[in-house]
Amino acid sequence: MAAPGLFITLEGGEGSGKSTQSARLVTRLRAAGWDPLVTREPGGTPLSEGVRALLMDPAQQPVALAEAFLMQASRAQLVAEVIRPALDAGRIVVCDRYADSTLAYQGAGRGLDPAMLTEWNRAATGGLTPHLTLLFDLPAEAGLSRRAQAPGSTNRIDREPQDFHARVQARFRALAAADPARWVVLDAAADPDTIAEHVWAEVAKRLPQTVR
Amino acid sequence: MAAPGLFITLEGGEGSGKSTQSARLVTRLRAAGWDPLVTREPGGTPLSEGVRALLMDPAQQPVALAEAFLMQASRAQLVAEVIRPALDAGRIVVCDRYADSTLAYQGAGRGLDPAMLTEWNRAATGGLTPHLTLLFDLPAEAGLSRRAQAPGSTNRIDREPQDFHARVQARFRALAAADPARWVVLDAAADPDTIAEHVWAEVAKRLPQTVR
Repeated sequence: MAAPGLFITLEGGEGSGKSTQSARLVTRLRAAGWDPLVTREPGGTPLSEGVRALLMDPAQQPVALAEAFLMQASRAQLVAEVIRPALDAGRIVVCDRYADSTLAYQGAGRGLDPAMLTEWNRAATGGLTPHLTLLFDLPAEAGLSRRAQAPGSTNRIDREPQDFHARVQARFRALAAADPARWVVLDAAADPDTIAEHVWAEVAKRLPQTVR
Repeated sequence: MAAPGLFITLEGGEGSGKSTQSARLVTRLRAAGWDPLVTREPGGTPLSEGVRALLMDPAQQPVALAEAFLMQASRAQLVAEVIRPALDAGRIVVCDRYADSTLAYQGAGRGLDPAMLTEWNRAATGGLTPHLTLLFDLPAEAGLSRRAQAPGSTNRIDREPQDFHARVQARFRALAAADPARWVVLDAAADPDTIAEHVWAEVAKRLPQTVR
Protein backbone atom coordinates (compact mmCIF):
# COMPACT_ATOMS: atom_id res chain seq x y z
CA MET A 1 0.00 0.00 0.00
CA ALA A 2 3.05 2.32 -0.12
CA ALA A 3 2.08 5.45 -2.02
CA PRO A 4 4.72 7.22 -4.10
CA GLY A 5 3.56 10.73 -3.14
CA LEU A 6 4.08 12.61 0.11
CA PHE A 7 1.23 12.78 2.60
CA ILE A 8 1.41 15.61 5.15
CA THR A 9 -1.22 16.21 7.82
CA LEU A 10 -1.65 19.17 10.16
CA GLU A 11 -3.07 18.58 13.62
CA GLY A 12 -3.72 20.70 16.66
CA GLY A 13 -6.36 22.41 18.72
CA GLU A 14 -8.64 25.27 17.80
CA GLY A 15 -6.87 28.53 17.01
CA SER A 16 -3.46 26.89 16.77
CA GLY A 17 -2.65 28.53 13.43
CA LYS A 18 -2.89 25.34 11.33
CA SER A 19 -4.81 27.00 8.52
CA THR A 20 -2.44 29.95 8.23
CA GLN A 21 0.61 27.70 8.17
CA SER A 22 -1.04 25.31 5.72
CA ALA A 23 -1.57 28.19 3.31
CA ARG A 24 2.03 29.34 3.72
CA LEU A 25 3.35 25.82 3.16
CA VAL A 26 1.30 25.41 0.00
CA THR A 27 2.47 28.76 -1.35
CA ARG A 28 6.06 27.74 -0.74
CA LEU A 29 5.59 24.31 -2.33
CA ARG A 30 4.11 25.96 -5.42
CA ALA A 31 6.97 28.45 -5.57
CA ALA A 32 9.34 25.47 -5.52
CA GLY A 33 7.55 23.98 -8.53
CA TRP A 34 5.34 21.41 -6.82
CA ASP A 35 1.61 20.98 -7.38
CA PRO A 36 0.29 20.07 -3.94
CA LEU A 37 -3.24 18.90 -3.35
CA VAL A 38 -4.71 20.77 -0.38
CA THR A 39 -7.69 19.40 1.49
CA ARG A 40 -9.27 19.22 4.93
CA GLU A 41 -11.29 17.16 7.33
CA PRO A 42 -14.14 16.92 7.75
CA GLY A 43 -14.75 17.79 4.11
CA GLY A 44 -12.84 17.77 0.86
CA THR A 45 -15.40 15.96 -1.33
CA PRO A 46 -19.03 16.87 -2.10
CA LEU A 47 -20.25 14.11 0.23
CA SER A 48 -17.74 14.99 2.95
CA GLU A 49 -18.58 18.69 2.77
CA GLY A 50 -22.23 17.68 3.23
CA VAL A 51 -21.16 15.78 6.34
CA ARG A 52 -19.16 18.81 7.49
CA ALA A 53 -22.22 21.03 7.12
CA LEU A 54 -24.19 18.67 9.37
CA LEU A 55 -21.39 18.59 11.95
CA MET A 56 -20.97 22.37 11.98
CA ASP A 57 -24.71 23.14 12.05
CA PRO A 58 -25.31 24.76 15.45
CA ALA A 59 -28.89 23.42 15.39
CA GLN A 60 -27.65 19.81 15.41
CA GLN A 61 -26.71 17.99 18.59
CA PRO A 62 -24.99 14.79 17.50
CA VAL A 63 -24.27 12.24 20.22
CA ALA A 64 -20.59 11.30 20.49
CA LEU A 65 -21.00 8.07 18.52
CA ALA A 66 -22.87 9.78 15.70
CA GLU A 67 -20.20 12.48 15.54
CA ALA A 68 -17.48 9.81 15.33
CA PHE A 69 -19.30 7.85 12.60
CA LEU A 70 -19.85 11.04 10.60
CA MET A 71 -16.14 11.87 10.81
CA GLN A 72 -15.30 8.40 9.50
CA ALA A 73 -17.82 8.70 6.66
CA SER A 74 -16.20 11.96 5.60
CA ARG A 75 -12.73 10.38 5.91
CA ALA A 76 -13.55 7.21 3.97
CA GLN A 77 -14.88 9.24 1.06
CA LEU A 78 -11.97 11.71 1.15
CA VAL A 79 -9.33 8.97 1.15
CA ALA A 80 -10.99 7.00 -1.65
CA GLU A 81 -11.95 9.91 -3.87
CA VAL A 82 -9.15 12.42 -3.30
CA ILE A 83 -6.15 11.51 -1.14
CA ARG A 84 -5.26 8.05 -2.42
CA PRO A 85 -5.62 8.94 -6.12
CA ALA A 86 -3.43 12.03 -5.60
CA LEU A 87 -0.73 10.05 -3.78
CA ASP A 88 -0.89 7.32 -6.41
CA ALA A 89 -0.24 10.03 -8.99
CA GLY A 90 2.86 11.06 -7.03
CA ARG A 91 1.48 14.33 -5.69
CA ILE A 92 2.08 15.98 -2.34
CA VAL A 93 -1.10 16.00 -0.25
CA VAL A 94 -1.53 18.54 2.55
CA CYS A 95 -4.53 17.75 4.75
CA ASP A 96 -5.81 19.96 7.58
CA ARG A 97 -6.76 17.30 10.20
CA TYR A 98 -6.92 13.55 9.62
CA ALA A 99 -7.40 10.34 11.62
CA ASP A 100 -5.43 11.61 14.64
CA SER A 101 -8.07 14.30 15.19
CA THR A 102 -10.63 11.55 15.80
CA LEU A 103 -8.43 10.04 18.52
CA ALA A 104 -8.02 13.47 20.14
CA TYR A 105 -11.55 14.89 19.80
CA GLN A 106 -13.89 11.90 19.81
CA GLY A 107 -11.49 9.84 21.93
CA ALA A 108 -9.94 12.08 24.58
CA GLY A 109 -12.52 14.85 24.18
CA ARG A 110 -15.76 12.83 24.05
CA GLY A 111 -14.50 9.79 25.93
CA LEU A 112 -15.05 7.15 23.22
CA ASP A 113 -12.91 3.99 23.35
CA PRO A 114 -9.57 4.68 21.61
CA ALA A 115 -9.20 1.05 20.46
CA MET A 116 -12.59 1.24 18.75
CA LEU A 117 -11.75 4.56 17.10
CA THR A 118 -8.39 3.19 15.93
CA GLU A 119 -10.21 0.29 14.25
CA TRP A 120 -12.62 2.70 12.56
CA ASN A 121 -9.70 4.88 11.44
CA ARG A 122 -8.01 1.83 9.94
CA ALA A 123 -11.20 0.87 8.08
CA ALA A 124 -11.89 4.39 6.82
CA THR A 125 -8.33 4.99 5.62
CA GLY A 126 -7.50 1.46 4.47
CA GLY A 127 -4.44 1.87 6.68
CA LEU A 128 -3.18 4.97 4.82
CA THR A 129 -0.91 6.81 7.29
CA PRO A 130 0.73 10.21 6.75
CA HIS A 131 4.45 10.43 6.08
CA LEU A 132 4.60 13.56 8.21
CA THR A 133 2.21 14.95 10.81
CA LEU A 134 2.77 18.47 12.07
CA LEU A 135 1.38 19.15 15.52
CA PHE A 136 0.64 22.81 16.19
CA ASP A 137 1.00 22.64 19.92
CA LEU A 138 -0.60 25.39 21.96
CA PRO A 139 -2.07 25.45 25.46
CA ALA A 140 -5.85 25.07 25.10
CA GLU A 141 -6.62 28.42 26.74
CA ALA A 142 -4.38 30.30 24.29
CA GLY A 143 -6.06 28.77 21.23
CA LEU A 144 -9.55 29.46 22.48
CA SER A 145 -8.63 33.01 23.31
CA ARG A 146 -7.36 33.50 19.75
CA ARG A 147 -10.60 32.12 18.33
CA ALA A 148 -12.75 34.28 20.61
CA GLN A 149 -11.00 37.37 19.25
CA ALA A 150 -12.07 36.53 15.68
CA PRO A 151 -15.80 37.35 15.67
CA GLY A 152 -18.05 34.75 14.05
CA SER A 153 -15.36 32.12 13.91
CA THR A 154 -16.38 30.01 16.88
CA ASN A 155 -18.21 26.73 16.31
CA ARG A 156 -19.82 23.88 18.26
CA ILE A 157 -16.43 22.42 19.18
CA ASP A 158 -14.97 25.77 20.24
CA ARG A 159 -17.73 26.11 22.78
CA GLU A 160 -16.80 22.92 24.63
CA PRO A 161 -15.45 23.55 28.15
CA GLN A 162 -11.75 24.20 28.59
CA ASP A 163 -11.03 20.78 30.12
CA PHE A 164 -12.29 19.22 26.88
CA HIS A 165 -9.67 21.16 24.94
CA ALA A 166 -7.00 20.37 27.51
CA ARG A 167 -7.71 16.64 27.06
CA VAL A 168 -7.52 17.07 23.28
CA GLN A 169 -4.16 18.82 23.53
CA ALA A 170 -2.78 16.18 25.90
CA ARG A 171 -3.84 13.37 23.55
CA PHE A 172 -2.18 15.06 20.58
CA ARG A 173 1.05 15.33 22.59
CA ALA A 174 0.82 11.67 23.60
CA LEU A 175 0.26 10.57 20.01
CA ALA A 176 3.25 12.62 18.88
CA ALA A 177 5.46 11.22 21.63
CA ALA A 178 4.47 7.66 20.71
CA ASP A 179 5.53 8.00 17.05
CA PRO A 180 8.33 10.55 16.71
CA ALA A 181 9.28 9.28 13.24
CA ARG A 182 5.98 10.59 11.89
CA TRP A 183 5.20 13.54 14.17
CA VAL A 184 6.91 16.91 14.48
CA VAL A 185 5.77 19.10 17.37
CA LEU A 186 5.79 22.83 16.65
CA ASP A 187 5.46 25.58 19.22
CA ALA A 188 2.33 27.26 17.88
CA ALA A 189 2.85 30.22 20.21
CA ALA A 190 6.03 31.18 18.35
CA ASP A 191 6.31 33.89 15.73
CA PRO A 192 4.49 32.82 12.52
CA ASP A 193 7.62 33.33 10.39
CA THR A 194 9.61 31.11 12.73
CA ILE A 195 6.93 28.42 12.57
CA ALA A 196 6.80 28.63 8.78
CA GLU A 197 10.58 28.10 8.60
CA HIS A 198 10.35 25.13 10.93
CA VAL A 199 7.53 23.62 8.83
CA TRP A 200 9.45 24.15 5.62
CA ALA A 201 12.61 22.57 7.01
CA GLU A 202 10.68 19.45 8.00
CA VAL A 203 8.82 19.22 4.70
CA ALA A 204 11.87 19.95 2.56
CA LYS A 205 13.84 17.03 3.90
CA ARG A 206 10.98 14.68 3.02
CA LEU A 207 10.32 15.97 -0.50
CA PRO A 208 10.62 13.28 -3.16
CA GLN A 209 13.99 13.44 -4.85
CA THR A 210 12.45 12.60 -8.19
CA VAL A 211 12.27 15.08 -11.04
CA ARG A 212 9.15 17.21 -10.70
CA MET B 1 -30.09 -3.13 29.16
CA ALA B 2 -33.54 -4.84 28.97
CA ALA B 3 -36.07 -2.23 27.88
CA PRO B 4 -39.62 -2.45 29.21
CA GLY B 5 -41.23 -1.43 25.90
CA LEU B 6 -41.65 -3.47 22.72
CA PHE B 7 -39.26 -2.90 19.83
CA ILE B 8 -40.47 -4.05 16.41
CA THR B 9 -38.44 -3.66 13.21
CA LEU B 10 -39.51 -4.21 9.61
CA GLU B 11 -36.96 -5.48 7.11
CA GLY B 12 -37.01 -6.46 3.47
CA GLY B 13 -36.03 -5.43 -0.01
CA GLU B 14 -37.28 -2.53 -2.08
CA GLY B 15 -40.97 -2.64 -2.93
CA SER B 16 -41.71 -5.38 -0.40
CA GLY B 17 -44.65 -3.50 1.11
CA LYS B 18 -42.97 -2.69 4.43
CA SER B 19 -44.23 0.89 4.52
CA THR B 20 -47.82 -0.04 3.77
CA GLN B 21 -47.84 -2.75 6.42
CA SER B 22 -46.10 -0.49 8.93
CA ALA B 23 -48.90 2.06 8.52
CA ARG B 24 -51.57 -0.63 8.92
CA LEU B 25 -49.88 -2.01 12.04
CA VAL B 26 -49.67 1.43 13.61
CA THR B 27 -53.32 2.14 12.86
CA ARG B 28 -54.30 -1.12 14.49
CA LEU B 29 -52.11 -0.51 17.55
CA ARG B 30 -53.71 2.91 18.00
CA ALA B 31 -57.19 1.45 17.63
CA ALA B 32 -56.24 -1.00 20.41
CA GLY B 33 -55.32 1.91 22.68
CA TRP B 34 -51.53 1.91 22.29
CA ASP B 35 -49.40 4.94 21.49
CA PRO B 36 -46.68 3.52 19.24
CA LEU B 37 -43.65 5.51 18.20
CA VAL B 38 -43.08 5.14 14.46
CA THR B 39 -39.71 5.83 12.91
CA ARG B 40 -37.40 4.79 10.12
CA GLU B 41 -33.82 4.31 9.02
CA PRO B 42 -31.93 6.11 7.79
CA GLY B 43 -33.65 9.06 9.44
CA GLY B 44 -35.93 9.71 12.37
CA THR B 45 -34.04 12.59 14.00
CA PRO B 46 -33.02 15.97 12.54
CA LEU B 47 -29.41 14.80 12.24
CA SER B 48 -30.39 11.41 10.84
CA GLU B 49 -32.73 12.95 8.29
CA GLY B 50 -29.81 15.13 7.20
CA VAL B 51 -27.79 11.95 6.73
CA ARG B 52 -30.69 10.40 4.82
CA ALA B 53 -30.81 13.40 2.48
CA LEU B 54 -27.10 12.91 1.71
CA LEU B 55 -27.58 9.18 1.12
CA MET B 56 -30.61 9.69 -1.13
CA ASP B 57 -29.11 12.56 -3.11
CA PRO B 58 -28.66 11.21 -6.65
CA ALA B 59 -25.72 13.61 -7.15
CA GLN B 60 -23.72 11.89 -4.39
CA GLN B 61 -21.63 8.79 -5.00
CA PRO B 62 -20.63 7.50 -1.58
CA VAL B 63 -18.09 4.69 -1.50
CA ALA B 64 -19.30 1.58 0.33
CA LEU B 65 -17.44 2.43 3.55
CA ALA B 66 -18.78 5.98 3.62
CA GLU B 67 -22.30 4.68 3.05
CA ALA B 68 -21.89 2.23 5.93
CA PHE B 69 -20.49 4.87 8.30
CA LEU B 70 -23.34 7.25 7.40
CA MET B 71 -25.90 4.54 8.17
CA GLN B 72 -24.28 4.00 11.56
CA ALA B 73 -24.24 7.74 12.30
CA SER B 74 -27.96 7.92 11.58
CA ARG B 75 -28.54 4.80 13.71
CA ALA B 76 -26.48 5.95 16.71
CA GLN B 77 -28.40 9.23 16.84
CA LEU B 78 -31.79 7.55 16.36
CA VAL B 79 -31.20 5.00 19.12
CA ALA B 80 -29.89 7.58 21.60
CA GLU B 81 -32.39 10.33 20.86
CA VAL B 82 -35.58 8.44 19.99
CA ILE B 83 -35.72 4.66 20.28
CA ARG B 84 -34.12 4.06 23.67
CA PRO B 85 -36.01 6.87 25.45
CA ALA B 86 -39.31 5.59 23.99
CA LEU B 87 -38.61 2.00 25.08
CA ASP B 88 -37.50 3.20 28.50
CA ALA B 89 -40.87 4.94 28.76
CA GLY B 90 -42.56 1.61 28.02
CA ARG B 91 -43.72 2.51 24.51
CA ILE B 92 -44.00 0.30 21.44
CA VAL B 93 -41.46 1.33 18.80
CA VAL B 94 -42.04 0.42 15.14
CA CYS B 95 -38.96 1.06 13.00
CA ASP B 96 -38.81 0.70 9.21
CA ARG B 97 -35.31 -0.84 8.78
CA TYR B 98 -32.66 -1.16 11.47
CA ALA B 99 -29.24 -2.78 11.99
CA ASP B 100 -30.10 -5.88 9.93
CA SER B 101 -30.43 -3.71 6.83
CA THR B 102 -26.76 -2.78 7.17
CA LEU B 103 -25.79 -6.45 7.16
CA ALA B 104 -27.93 -7.03 4.07
CA TYR B 105 -27.19 -3.91 2.02
CA GLN B 106 -23.69 -2.84 3.01
CA GLY B 107 -22.65 -6.41 3.82
CA ALA B 108 -24.13 -8.74 1.22
CA GLY B 109 -24.93 -5.97 -1.25
CA ARG B 110 -21.71 -3.94 -1.15
CA GLY B 111 -19.42 -6.72 0.02
CA LEU B 112 -18.20 -5.17 3.29
CA ASP B 113 -16.98 -7.53 6.02
CA PRO B 114 -20.00 -8.74 8.05
CA ALA B 115 -17.96 -9.08 11.27
CA MET B 116 -16.89 -5.44 10.98
CA LEU B 117 -20.45 -4.30 10.30
CA THR B 118 -21.72 -6.34 13.25
CA GLU B 119 -19.22 -4.56 15.51
CA TRP B 120 -20.34 -1.17 14.19
CA ASN B 121 -23.99 -2.14 14.68
CA ARG B 122 -23.23 -3.12 18.26
CA ALA B 123 -21.49 0.22 18.88
CA ALA B 124 -24.22 2.30 17.23
CA THR B 125 -27.08 0.56 19.03
CA GLY B 126 -25.35 -0.08 22.36
CA GLY B 127 -26.48 -3.67 21.80
CA LEU B 128 -30.18 -2.76 21.58
CA THR B 129 -31.84 -5.60 19.64
CA PRO B 130 -35.48 -5.73 18.48
CA HIS B 131 -37.93 -8.01 20.25
CA LEU B 132 -39.52 -8.81 16.89
CA THR B 133 -38.24 -8.38 13.35
CA LEU B 134 -40.68 -8.84 10.48
CA LEU B 135 -39.08 -9.85 7.19
CA PHE B 136 -41.15 -8.93 4.15
CA ASP B 137 -39.78 -11.61 1.90
CA LEU B 138 -40.17 -11.12 -1.83
CA PRO B 139 -38.05 -12.24 -4.78
CA ALA B 140 -35.84 -9.30 -5.76
CA GLU B 141 -37.27 -9.03 -9.28
CA ALA B 142 -40.85 -8.76 -7.94
CA GLY B 143 -39.98 -5.90 -5.58
CA LEU B 144 -38.10 -3.95 -8.21
CA SER B 145 -40.92 -4.40 -10.67
CA ARG B 146 -43.35 -2.97 -8.11
CA ARG B 147 -41.11 0.05 -7.55
CA ALA B 148 -40.64 0.66 -11.26
CA GLN B 149 -44.41 0.89 -11.64
CA ALA B 150 -44.58 3.78 -9.17
CA PRO B 151 -43.12 6.70 -11.13
CA GLY B 152 -40.61 8.85 -9.29
CA SER B 153 -40.18 6.41 -6.46
CA THR B 154 -36.90 4.80 -7.49
CA ASN B 155 -33.68 5.84 -5.75
CA ARG B 156 -29.94 5.16 -5.87
CA ILE B 157 -30.35 1.75 -4.23
CA ASP B 158 -33.23 0.70 -6.49
CA ARG B 159 -30.99 1.22 -9.49
CA GLU B 160 -28.43 -1.35 -8.35
CA PRO B 161 -28.27 -4.43 -10.58
CA GLN B 162 -30.59 -7.32 -9.84
CA ASP B 163 -27.88 -9.57 -8.42
CA PHE B 164 -27.26 -6.91 -5.75
CA HIS B 165 -30.89 -7.19 -4.66
CA ALA B 166 -30.77 -11.00 -4.85
CA ARG B 167 -27.78 -11.00 -2.46
CA VAL B 168 -29.67 -8.64 -0.12
CA GLN B 169 -32.71 -10.90 -0.10
CA ALA B 170 -30.59 -14.00 0.52
CA ARG B 171 -28.83 -12.34 3.46
CA PHE B 172 -32.15 -11.31 5.03
CA ARG B 173 -33.34 -14.92 4.76
CA ALA B 174 -30.12 -16.20 6.32
CA LEU B 175 -30.36 -13.74 9.21
CA ALA B 176 -33.97 -14.80 9.82
CA ALA B 177 -33.06 -18.48 9.73
CA ALA B 178 -30.25 -17.95 12.23
CA ASP B 179 -32.48 -16.32 14.86
CA PRO B 180 -36.06 -17.63 14.56
CA ALA B 181 -36.96 -16.40 18.05
CA ARG B 182 -36.66 -12.82 16.85
CA TRP B 183 -37.55 -13.03 13.16
CA VAL B 184 -40.86 -13.77 11.46
CA VAL B 185 -40.75 -14.30 7.70
CA LEU B 186 -43.80 -13.03 5.83
CA ASP B 187 -44.68 -13.83 2.24
CA ALA B 188 -44.72 -10.30 0.86
CA ALA B 189 -46.32 -11.53 -2.37
CA ALA B 190 -49.48 -12.49 -0.48
CA ASP B 191 -52.66 -10.44 -0.35
CA PRO B 192 -52.11 -7.27 1.78
CA ASP B 193 -55.02 -8.12 4.10
CA THR B 194 -53.56 -11.57 4.70
CA ILE B 195 -50.14 -10.08 5.48
CA ALA B 196 -51.69 -7.54 7.84
CA GLU B 197 -53.45 -10.33 9.76
CA HIS B 198 -50.21 -12.29 9.99
CA VAL B 199 -48.34 -9.20 11.24
CA TRP B 200 -51.03 -8.46 13.81
CA ALA B 201 -51.06 -12.03 15.11
CA GLU B 202 -47.28 -11.91 15.67
CA VAL B 203 -47.38 -8.48 17.30
CA ALA B 204 -50.41 -9.22 19.47
CA LYS B 205 -48.81 -12.17 21.18
CA ARG B 206 -45.82 -10.00 22.14
CA LEU B 207 -47.78 -6.99 23.43
CA PRO B 208 -46.94 -6.12 27.02
CA GLN B 209 -49.55 -7.53 29.35
CA THR B 210 -49.33 -4.46 31.56
CA VAL B 211 -52.10 -1.88 31.85
CA ARG B 212 -51.74 0.64 29.04
